[in-house]
Amino acid sequence: MYTITFSLNPAADAPLYEQLYAYFVAEIRAGRLRPGEKLPSKRALCAHLGISRSTVETAYALLVSEGYLYARPKSGYYVADFVALEGVGGLTAHSAPAETEQTEAPPEFDFSTGAVDVSRFPYSSWAKLNKEVVYSSPELLQRGDGQGDAALRRALAAFLGEYRGVQCTPEQIVVGAGMEYLADLLLRLFPADTVFGMEDPGYAALRQSARTTGRTLRFLPLDESGLSMEGLIGSGASVAYVTPSHQFPMGITMPAGRRSQLLHWAAAAPDRYIIEDDYDSEFRYAMRPIPAMQGMDSAGRVIYLGTFSRSLAPSIRVAYMVLPPALLARYRALFGHARSTVSRYEQAVLSRFLAEGFYMRYLRRVGNLYRQRRARLLSALETVPGVSVSGSGGGIHFLLTNPRFSEPELCQRALSVGVALRGLSAYCIRCAPRPSTLVIGYGGLCDEKIPEAAARLSKAWR
Amino acid sequence: MYTITFSLNPAADAPLYEQLYAYFVAEIRAGRLRPGEKLPSKRALCAHLGISRSTVETAYALLVSEGYLYARPKSGYYVADFVALEGVGGLTAHSAPAETEQTEAPPEFDFSTGAVDVSRFPYSSWAKLNKEVVYSSPELLQRGDGQGDAALRRALAAFLGEYRGVQCTPEQIVVGAGMEYLADLLLRLFPADTVFGMEDPGYAALRQSARTTGRTLRFLPLDESGLSMEGLIGSGASVAYVTPSHQFPMGITMPAGRRSQLLHWAAAAPDRYIIEDDYDSEFRYAMRPIPAMQGMDSAGRVIYLGTFSRSLAPSIRVAYMVLPPALLARYRALFGHARSTVSRYEQAVLSRFLAEGFYMRYLRRVGNLYRQRRARLLSALETVPGVSVSGSGGGIHFLLTNPRFSEPELCQRALSVGVALRGLSAYCIRCAPRPSTLVIGYGGLCDEKIPEAAARLSKAWR
Repeated sequence: MYTITFSLNPAADAPLYEQLYAYFVAEIRAGRLRPGEKLPSKRALCAHLGISRSTVETAYALLVSEGYLYARPKSGYYVADFVALEGVGGLTAHSAPAETEQTEAPPEFDFSTGAVDVSRFPYSSWAKLNKEVVYSSPELLQRGDGQGDAALRRALAAFLGEYRGVQCTPEQIVVGAGMEYLADLLLRLFPADTVFGMEDPGYAALRQSARTTGRTLRFLPLDESGLSMEGLIGSGASVAYVTPSHQFPMGITMPAGRRSQLLHWAAAAPDRYIIEDDYDSEFRYAMRPIPAMQGMDSAGRVIYLGTFSRSLAPSIRVAYMVLPPALLARYRALFGHARSTVSRYEQAVLSRFLAEGFYMRYLRRVGNLYRQRRARLLSALETVPGVSVSGSGGGIHFLLTNPRFSEPELCQRALSVGVALRGLSAYCIRCAPRPSTLVIGYGGLCDEKIPEAAARLSKAWR
Repeated sequence: MYTITFSLNPAADAPLYEQLYAYFVAEIRAGRLRPGEKLPSKRALCAHLGISRSTVETAYALLVSEGYLYARPKSGYYVADFVALEGVGGLTAHSAPAETEQTEAPPEFDFSTGAVDVSRFPYSSWAKLNKEVVYSSPELLQRGDGQGDAALRRALAAFLGEYRGVQCTPEQIVVGAGMEYLADLLLRLFPADTVFGMEDPGYAALRQSARTTGRTLRFLPLDESGLSMEGLIGSGASVAYVTPSHQFPMGITMPAGRRSQLLHWAAAAPDRYIIEDDYDSEFRYAMRPIPAMQGMDSAGRVIYLGTFSRSLAPSIRVAYMVLPPALLARYRALFGHARSTVSRYEQAVLSRFLAEGFYMRYLRRVGNLYRQRRARLLSALETVPGVSVSGSGGGIHFLLTNPRFSEPELCQRALSVGVALRGLSAYCIRCAPRPSTLVIGYGGLCDEKIPEAAARLSKAWR
């Protein structure tokens, strides 16, 4: 167990939580607290140092929001790996902590980008389809197609064609247990010396895949249209990972001109590909939905990625990718024997959910919910002095900027009134974040709390 | 599309199916037919060459049984990757084939090792638990613990402790979408220059993971006790992947002495580990169940792997691993942020299925089924001249040897009477297979067919 060697200085200028925060940052950076290591429980730390629970809570929350720690439900706080990018060596054994610590209470105001509103989830149709599927065919208990069952892939091809403009046959679709799983497979479809370009700030999950599969990532700058062409061309990357529908986290919708430039870039050399992550395209507010880039691609160079985890529920681990024909052959050569990672019962339920119209009805219902919530939240935030908003045209997050304070100050002051917010810098890998900017997710925020949240922020950022 | 340049010679000694078979082997070996490429449909080939459907069927079945081709349901036959071990480069684009070909009829006598008997599957308890779980808690729709939900891990820890002698806390368990998925993660928990030793013949799925993650595998010989210690020590491997409960495919149960040698080997250097794949330990016939090696390990060097796909149903994609504390820390550092790959509804159903005793009742029921089937099959095979059997003490497969014919002859002759069998050589990577030996799975063979299957083999191997 890690031993605390910290002593507080009540006479110092910095508040106690900041001293504690700075102590842990130094311990982690120095490698005395190692990735995966468990921190003392809040209770133990309060007792040990004779400080208040809120001091410890504030320090831990800051460490989590800046990516030094992560919380595991019902377990406690652990050191994140972001400081250990150079390798896995040097970790030492220590005994497995028991699961004793109490569950964290959910934050009073939930602005996390991962949360999704499930209050309208169609429990009864889901349960009914589940039951029918279990009794429908003993064949569904046997091994299925490694790419996903044909019925689900047919339903997906129809849905993607109609609503996203994706041009594909069911044969080109691969179903898998979540976006991360498929992105991880994708990196490995390319030769080991391939250079992948990803948006910075961007989707962090790729980094662990790249690291553990020995693939090279380059972090590429954005401009007001999304991925910078200059940055891409200068990087030497041959595969570009982009989120054109609603850039994560900047919220930029890539305009048609940049899409066309990207497609031309890909078509100009035989080994170039674009991975189009269309993760939250189901929700658009400011304008009509923009079809996927995949549908504009005549050279067979776009890989399309989508997921049910954000549109339906985070716990439903089903994502899909559409491979261009050349990569489909490569996929089959490398992974043709691999078993599916999704239960066939779940696949069967989803395929009926899509084919029988439940999914579209659900998307409309929850889309309206988000549309109203977004409008309420944006107008409530107009009452908060200094605040401006961008990237809110789609999805369920946007950026909030308040130049009156620095990013850490914005977070700390919000936290002091019970509002946990995440700074944009947490998503920046090499880039300098836009100053004084936070990423606001509203999927998990119930409407009734909006006025109070805005009132608290007005107070905190006075 | 691939163009056939083959002409049959009806005057030749070799039967037509063998000429066709030899032609495709040559095309594949020469790289003219490439991994992932689709073969002409049987119908097209019959028409093109003016030969009978059964000739084409026999040739394709042989190519599948020897690993040159694989069949995709409702799609057709594709070139497997086994000849393309050197890299993924050089594949060319071709358009995605549409899903037109008819589903293959299941083999008349199913001796595949992947099949599982699901005739006793507890549909009504499963459906009931499913329904209760869907209505139980909206929280189950939100993101869960990346290692798997605590309730499932608690139920697994209790089950594994009681029935397999595994010593662990729920914290040490990681739940994931199938054995292949977890094995793939495992390879990546170790530094990139780690050498992994695997049993030869053995579990082939590791090879694609190793190849696409840049890990080094060494194929190690077996002796009558399982993995050879001499082979392991001489290989330079620091991580050994073994199936001690029922070696796949040889069926050897590793005796206590060899287990102890292996554990001593692992404890003798700081970076050595044993991956214990306990894939079908739920079923034992000849003696009482042997506890897992993990429970004998006092040095924290055994990683235990298990799955529900063989004990419950192949389509239920849930497996689990138990990590020793040092690797748990490494897992959290590398994959602590990764999302679970298993639906939380399915996790909740499984945890209740375990905790409320349904699973043990089911294992007893299906274990009795397999015990009786095994006894029937073994006594029916006693009537087949020349046949001897080994490795039948557990699981749902064994080896059959018939020295009267070579392995390909045994397969061809069986196929000519409608019995598809797989030779041991399909599982051999570097080793020379035991001659004239087949791998017989009986999970998918219904009892009523046993006498007829034995009668046909008697006729074929006359």
